[in-house]
Order: sequence, then C-alpha cells, then structure tokens
Amino acid sequence: MPKRETKKIKPSQEVIKEGPFLVAIHLKGIYMSNYTNSPCAACKFLRRKCTSDCVFAPYFPPEEPTKFANVHRIFGASNVSKILHEVAPHQREDAVNSLAYEAEARLKDPVYGCVGAISVLQRQVLRLQRELEETNADLMRYAGCLGGETTSAYGGRRG
Amino acid sequence: MPKRETKKIKPSQEVIKEGPFLVAIHLKGIYMSNYTNSPCAACKFLRRKCTSDCVFAPYFPPEEPTKFANVHRIFGASNVSKILHEVAPHQREDAVNSLAYEAEARLKDPVYGCVGAISVLQRQVLRLQRELEETNADLMRYAGCLGGETTSAYGGRRG
Repeated sequence: MPKRETKKIKPSQEVIKEGPFLVAIHLKGIYMSNYTNSPCAACKFLRRKCTSDCVFAPYFPPEEPTKFANVHRIFGASNVSKILHEVAPHQREDAVNSLAYEAEARLKDPVYGCVGAISVLQRQVLRLQRELEETNADLMRYAGCLGGETTSAYGGRRG
Repeated sequence: MPKRETKKIKPSQEVIKEGPFLVAIHLKGIYMSNYTNSPCAACKFLRRKCTSDCVFAPYFPPEEPTKFANVHRIFGASNVSKILHEVAPHQREDAVNSLAYEAEARLKDPVYGCVGAISVLQRQVLRLQRELEETNADLMRYAGCLGGETTSAYGGRRG
C-alpha cells in the first residue's frame, strides 16, 4: 500500500475568485495529493517512470487522470512541459489549471473552445452597458422632474 | 512566379462580431489567399509536400506564416489536424481562427492564456451588474419621491 501524503497548496493570489469559470479552476487547484510511490497521472498515462524531478507530478496527481488526458489530447505532453518550463515555479499551478480549463472547453466545443465563453461574456458586457446607459437616462429624467434637487446624491453613477 | 488567386471567404454567421476580441478573430479570416503553386504555411513550416487535399491549406495561406507557427507551437500540428477532421468543413475556418486566437493569447501570457481575458470579462460583468442594481435602486427612490406617478413608464428595467 503506497504511503499517501496530502499537501495543501496555497491558492494563487493572482487569479480572481469571482465568477463561475475561475472559481471552478481555482477550486481544482487548492488541494493536491501526492502518492510517494505511485507515478503521477502524466507519467502513468505516458507509461514512463515518474522521477522526483518530474515537472508534471505536482500538478497532475494520480487521482485526477482526466485532467492530464485532456491537456495531452489538446496541447500534447511536450507542449505542456515546454510551457511549464517557461513559467516560474510559483505560477505553474495556475498555468496547468488554465490549460486544463482550455482543454476541457475545446473538448466540449471543438469549434470555439473557450473563445465561445469570451464571446458570451462580451455580449453580456455590451447588454449590461446598454441597460446601464438607459437606466442612467431614466434617472436623469426623474431628476429633471424633481427640479434637480437631489442631483448631488445620485450623480455619482451618471454619464 | 506562381499564379496567385485571392479568394473571398464568407464571414462566419455564428461568431458574434461585437467586442474587440472577436472582431480581431473575425477580420483575420475574411480574406484568404491561395498560391496555386506554393505550399500552404503549414506544409512550408513542416517541410512537406502540399497536396490538393491538404486539410491546412484553406486556413493557413503562405502569406500568414505566423498564424500556423503559433498554433503549431501551442497545440502541435497533429492536434490541430485532429480537431479540423472532427469538425464539419463549414466550421473549420472558425475553429482555426479560435485556435489561432488561443495560441496567440497563450504566447503572450503563458500562465493564463485567454483564460485571463475570461477573468477580466467576468469581473467587468460583476461590476456592471452591481452598478445596474445600484442605479435601479436610485431609480426606485426617485419614483418614491414622485409618488410612483411615472412608475409604468420607467418600470421595465427594474428588479
């Protein structure tokens, strides 16, 4: 029976925790387990020996085989390894989680991948901006009806 | 001198043209040139013969070598080819342009790639939603001051 060590990884300070996408990405990375005698999910998938300096091991624990399978299918192990070597060690967890998110999105939607999410969000921003402009215009009309007597109290969000 | 044919490709009807990201993606795909005697950018990069059934040729014209170099560096030629074979021919242009967008974003930001753009947009949506709620609350207070006499005229965007 291999000895199991559960390591608590400090959540990244740079990824914003708001919104459904990044909450999901972030939560995936909070706890990672290492089996000291088991190969990581990447080495298991690639059928190779998992050495102590394996670049994948800290981010692809054996109990999450799909995470590596997905990034391997979309980016390829060699490209993921290259990206991990390009970024600073403290940023590798975020890099892996964003790659895993992109890979999952591309598998779900081979045409647009996570660019589809960008498109949805851009439309939502445009709709909200228009709605806000219209609401502000209504507010100005109300202020006009009241002779502008409370303009200073409500003026902050106009324009 | 090879004969050059410039072909106008119909812009996709499915990608929304609003917002800076997708406008950029879209514009890249509007015009594509084919050199009848020149290999496409992919075959040139991979130093192989470009045949008439080359899956890359319609989307990687020789005059845009960076587009293929980027997707090759991030996804690998074999994975891009697999994705192109998975999607319907009329969706391949959109697939290539979204892959090119993702690849460029990952090269600019190896840690977050285009997930960084998703994070920025999510924060923008949250900020706009909060601002809209506050503006609607102001509007309700104004309506209260006026005794609700114009409620029906301005009630559409509340709540």
